[in-house]
Amino acid sequence: MDIERGEMLYEGKAKRLYATSNPDELVMEFKDSLTAFDAVKTGTLSGKGAINNQISGLIMGELNAGGIETCFIRQLDANSSLVKRTAIVPLEVIVRYEAHGSLCRRYGIEAGLAVYPPLVEAGYKNDALHDPFLTDEIAVLMGLATRDELARIRHMALITGEKLKEIYGRQGVKLLDFKLEFGRYAPSRSAPDGRPQPERIILADEVTPDTCRLIDAASGEKLDKDLFRFDLGDIGEGYRKLLGKMQN
Amino acid sequence: MDIERGEMLYEGKAKRLYATSNPDELVMEFKDSLTAFDAVKTGTLSGKGAINNQISGLIMGELNAGGIETCFIRQLDANSSLVKRTAIVPLEVIVRYEAHGSLCRRYGIEAGLAVYPPLVEAGYKNDALHDPFLTDEIAVLMGLATRDELARIRHMALITGEKLKEIYGRQGVKLLDFKLEFGRYAPSRSAPDGRPQPERIILADEVTPDTCRLIDAASGEKLDKDLFRFDLGDIGEGYRKLLGKMQN
Repeated sequence: MDIERGEMLYEGKAKRLYATSNPDELVMEFKDSLTAFDAVKTGTLSGKGAINNQISGLIMGELNAGGIETCFIRQLDANSSLVKRTAIVPLEVIVRYEAHGSLCRRYGIEAGLAVYPPLVEAGYKNDALHDPFLTDEIAVLMGLATRDELARIRHMALITGEKLKEIYGRQGVKLLDFKLEFGRYAPSRSAPDGRPQPERIILADEVTPDTCRLIDAASGEKLDKDLFRFDLGDIGEGYRKLLGKMQN
Repeated sequence: MDIERGEMLYEGKAKRLYATSNPDELVMEFKDSLTAFDAVKTGTLSGKGAINNQISGLIMGELNAGGIETCFIRQLDANSSLVKRTAIVPLEVIVRYEAHGSLCRRYGIEAGLAVYPPLVEAGYKNDALHDPFLTDEIAVLMGLATRDELARIRHMALITGEKLKEIYGRQGVKLLDFKLEFGRYAPSRSAPDGRPQPERIILADEVTPDTCRLIDAASGEKLDKDLFRFDLGDIGEGYRKLLGKMQN
């Protein structure tokens, strides 16, 4: 069935969102742009949007099937998918299994330190303030989320991580850390049994090598956005290699 | 009884510590120096060390009497006090009743926002890294403190805050936020009953207008280090005014 794209509702660094005739659903289009370090470094990679659309769809489809509700409904075309329309919780939720990136920069921790139990961090989604790291207490004070929502988000982040480690692990890929966003989904349509559907927190945004830190478990080769961040290699090849593994 | 000063063991921005003949006790000497913004701004105020030594002694003496164990034993002379020797937990613990300073800068929160319940924050004491804000989980990961110690520190910070609000409140002074440091105290001497004393967390460092954000409750006039940070007035007068109130 063809989906008619309506008004563009949002354009971010990596994606655009369009209205559809269904108020509960949007079209999510993945762009070919690359950004890093608060968009201080930018670039374009032809085909990257299509790769990420496919990777995110494969992963979120498996999360849905495994009982973790995500925004992903189905893929529409190379660059676009149909997704549930949510009100985004303005938090970037990071789960870490090894210390890398901002954790090392902030505290002088050596890169690669094993992190157990996994660390769940949150940053306030705000480009002007550089997504500052915060605690649950501060998120509540700022009215970004309730205590109940934060407990739900932490739980979902941890079980999503377990599932992601399994999905990537099957491809011989090791997950070191990842970033998630969550949304409040309050469908206007009733449930199949006729009862109104309650608002609930679901996994939103994307799960791709832009948002996961990934290495080939055997060779240690990077397969994620660090290729771009630090000019470490051919990012297109890294992303295509990951997608190829996942499609096998 | 006169205390013999031994070797200088530490010199910080605002204080020096000297050994004594008792391995469990040190002399803490308050300097006249002023620093702010990670010591980017520095100055000197003659008599400030003596004022802070007196204020900290008055407050910590009252905390001791109220059942909150601090490092303060007794005042020795104008600038020095006898204190318990602790191993400092490398955390700056901040308790906030109103949003000011770094909380507003980090998150774009409007200054003066009421914070209830009070917010307890911790920063990793590390000048080179600019005392980065962290969570309990990260403090445990870095080995800075155990979960039990962090729970104890949070509890002590909150009850210390209640006592400080009462002490300052009696002088017509309103406490907006404050910074504490804690130390592990493992006395080599047995308790009076002859049993060895267990290691315990006690309040360390100082409690002064350098570490508390204070205003005159009636006039709103600042009485703390913000006078120096932002060139808002005569810091000596502010500090002396506060001490005068406390000595009445």
